[in-house]
Amino acid sequence: MALIVKKFGGSSVKDYERVMNVARIITDTYKQGNDVIVVVSAQGDTTDDLIAKAAEITSKPQKREMDVLQSAGETISASLLAMACQEMGYPAVSLLGWQAGFQTSSAYGAARIKGIQTERLRRELDRKNIIIVAGFQGLCKYDDVTTFGRGGSDTTAVALAAALHADRCKIYTDVEGVYTCDPRKVPGAVKLDEITYDEMLELATLGAQVLNNRSVEMAKKYNVEMEVLSSYSNKPGTIVKEKIAMEKMLVRGVTKDADCARLSIVGVPNVPGMAFKIFSKLAARNINVDIILQSVGRDDLKDITFTVARAHADEAVAILHALDLTANAKIIKDTSVAKVSAVGAGMESHPGTASKMFEALYEAGINIQMIATSEIKISVLIEQDKADLAVAAVHKAFFPEG
Amino acid sequence: MALIVKKFGGSSVKDYERVMNVARIITDTYKQGNDVIVVVSAQGDTTDDLIAKAAEITSKPQKREMDVLQSAGETISASLLAMACQEMGYPAVSLLGWQAGFQTSSAYGAARIKGIQTERLRRELDRKNIIIVAGFQGLCKYDDVTTFGRGGSDTTAVALAAALHADRCKIYTDVEGVYTCDPRKVPGAVKLDEITYDEMLELATLGAQVLNNRSVEMAKKYNVEMEVLSSYSNKPGTIVKEKIAMEKMLVRGVTKDADCARLSIVGVPNVPGMAFKIFSKLAARNINVDIILQSVGRDDLKDITFTVARAHADEAVAILHALDLTANAKIIKDTSVAKVSAVGAGMESHPGTASKMFEALYEAGINIQMIATSEIKISVLIEQDKADLAVAAVHKAFFPEG
Repeated sequence: MALIVKKFGGSSVKDYERVMNVARIITDTYKQGNDVIVVVSAQGDTTDDLIAKAAEITSKPQKREMDVLQSAGETISASLLAMACQEMGYPAVSLLGWQAGFQTSSAYGAARIKGIQTERLRRELDRKNIIIVAGFQGLCKYDDVTTFGRGGSDTTAVALAAALHADRCKIYTDVEGVYTCDPRKVPGAVKLDEITYDEMLELATLGAQVLNNRSVEMAKKYNVEMEVLSSYSNKPGTIVKEKIAMEKMLVRGVTKDADCARLSIVGVPNVPGMAFKIFSKLAARNINVDIILQSVGRDDLKDITFTVARAHADEAVAILHALDLTANAKIIKDTSVAKVSAVGAGMESHPGTASKMFEALYEAGINIQMIATSEIKISVLIEQDKADLAVAAVHKAFFPEG
Repeated sequence: MALIVKKFGGSSVKDYERVMNVARIITDTYKQGNDVIVVVSAQGDTTDDLIAKAAEITSKPQKREMDVLQSAGETISASLLAMACQEMGYPAVSLLGWQAGFQTSSAYGAARIKGIQTERLRRELDRKNIIIVAGFQGLCKYDDVTTFGRGGSDTTAVALAAALHADRCKIYTDVEGVYTCDPRKVPGAVKLDEITYDEMLELATLGAQVLNNRSVEMAKKYNVEMEVLSSYSNKPGTIVKEKIAMEKMLVRGVTKDADCARLSIVGVPNVPGMAFKIFSKLAARNINVDIILQSVGRDDLKDITFTVARAHADEAVAILHALDLTANAKIIKDTSVAKVSAVGAGMESHPGTASKMFEALYEAGINIQMIATSEIKISVLIEQDKADLAVAAVHKAFFPEG
């Protein structure tokens, strides 16, 4: 007998058939003698529909009220799923965020979980109830409903698993696990049996979009073993944990992130403090800078190039112009770029990984504009039109059997 | 400066335009310097849509989960209305039932309000916030969401007005007040300026459908002055209170209730205890009996005739058959009947009211099947096809100027 936390996303409960399917998955686990806590997101497009209702009324909705509004989506799906389990003959109870004991910061729309008061949860488990928790919502110190932002239901699940020392936290999605590449685009993509938290974090940041990043960070912090699997098939998924068994694969995944723009300042005065001046202004406006490249100074001028999320490109350009660098400084924006990355804890101790990646790109005739590396990741910035080709080439180099 | 409670039904907030209209009504009152608490129902068909979702899953939904599910409807409308007030430049805050302090019994689906903890409400009033309360929901001792049943938002409003000693409780509907008759059917219908709680209760029971009965009972108990008015026009409505000014009108309203059936048991043994035997069995199955008529016994047999709600007719007939009265007893069901009533506190001291009503019916050629009277009401049971004609005739007799 184990305590299992399961999380189902919005598409997994989008209509009657999917709700009943999820209820079958839940009750199958329950009838094997396990304690089961389920976290559920809002059905299908419910959250978008609610946001659209607010958008009719105001272009600047108050975040507190948006949280109240959006919490209704999970309230609906949680109660329906409890009814579905009951209809199959099993005891179930829905709990909203405040009932499940989620205490959060009062950062409406992006609240942080501060703790979980587990009395009610334990009481319902003692009563042998299947617990259906409305995901992504909690209660702040002002007794207001808060939400954790998009993807917050993953975080709800991991937090519950951590607080109750669950044996496993299963995240059900519409893919069968974590792949070395996007399986819809790269035919040779391989499903991974296991992956480390750090690798998963790099993959998520780079656009793999399987797990919400905050949930992986929390799982890493509290050492919660996660499993990403499909609610459509009955196959084992990918286990995310601290350390994984000896592994031949250096690289665990190849990803593409097209949501970036490259900004260059050509002709910056070659004096100390310029980088600080530029990047502190961007940081003050919450613009994250990713890859940074600074030319070796020639004469009294140098060039600084960096990437930002595409949505921030215009604002960043405006900030750069306002800096009033020199009359000759030129600011160039390029949004036709993409970042392709290879991720894997194994590459830390294998210096050949980078050259293997560069070779694959060279053979595919792709020019590398910028390079960034970390212990478990190599990223290159390339022309956007060639991103899919690049992903396929790099993937083929690391997974020739795929 | 006064404290005003306003309640808006589902049709008053059914879409963007109606929500903005209600926000204008609310903020107009607020900007005149009043404290404003608003109770809102779920938008348009939301509650029906949610019930339909549950019905797909199960034919016997657990009441606890139905309450969680339905509470989402008011959660949505309350947050949207708060946003609309904010968009117009006024401070507003939505409160769900548990946040507004509604403590209820744990009779899910039909919970009774046990009390209101007013701390949060008073705090928000002190902050000069317009408070938007999600109607028809509360919290029971198990920390579960409960609902008050259909029409419960009226009760929410009256309870708030009573707990906070509000100066007025305004119930906005899609009619302009309480009429002497249904204005859509009887051209001479007159809008009443004032009506007593007791008259309102009789009119509501008889199918006037303007106010939820529980809310009027509560208003009477706590002496809360209510006003029924339209959210579509800007006219004064009808005030409901304990005593009203001297009034020439004996009769305050004429109503029709077609939701009834007449059951007769012909040939009941003329022995003591028969009525008890029959009506206690019906009461045990929660079947309310309205008008009762017992013939004067002839020989050893008598007849008993009574009316029940039409939905209960078949079940009542089955209960009567199960009683095994005598071999000769005959049970007759007639669903082609309607009840027409004249209501008015003034008739208590005016014995001529009944004869005036009977005369009007006689002149219209309508046969009276049964009669029931109370201090402030005269009801007759007649053929259903003639009900509208009867209402018009009786109304004309009491309101010749109409």
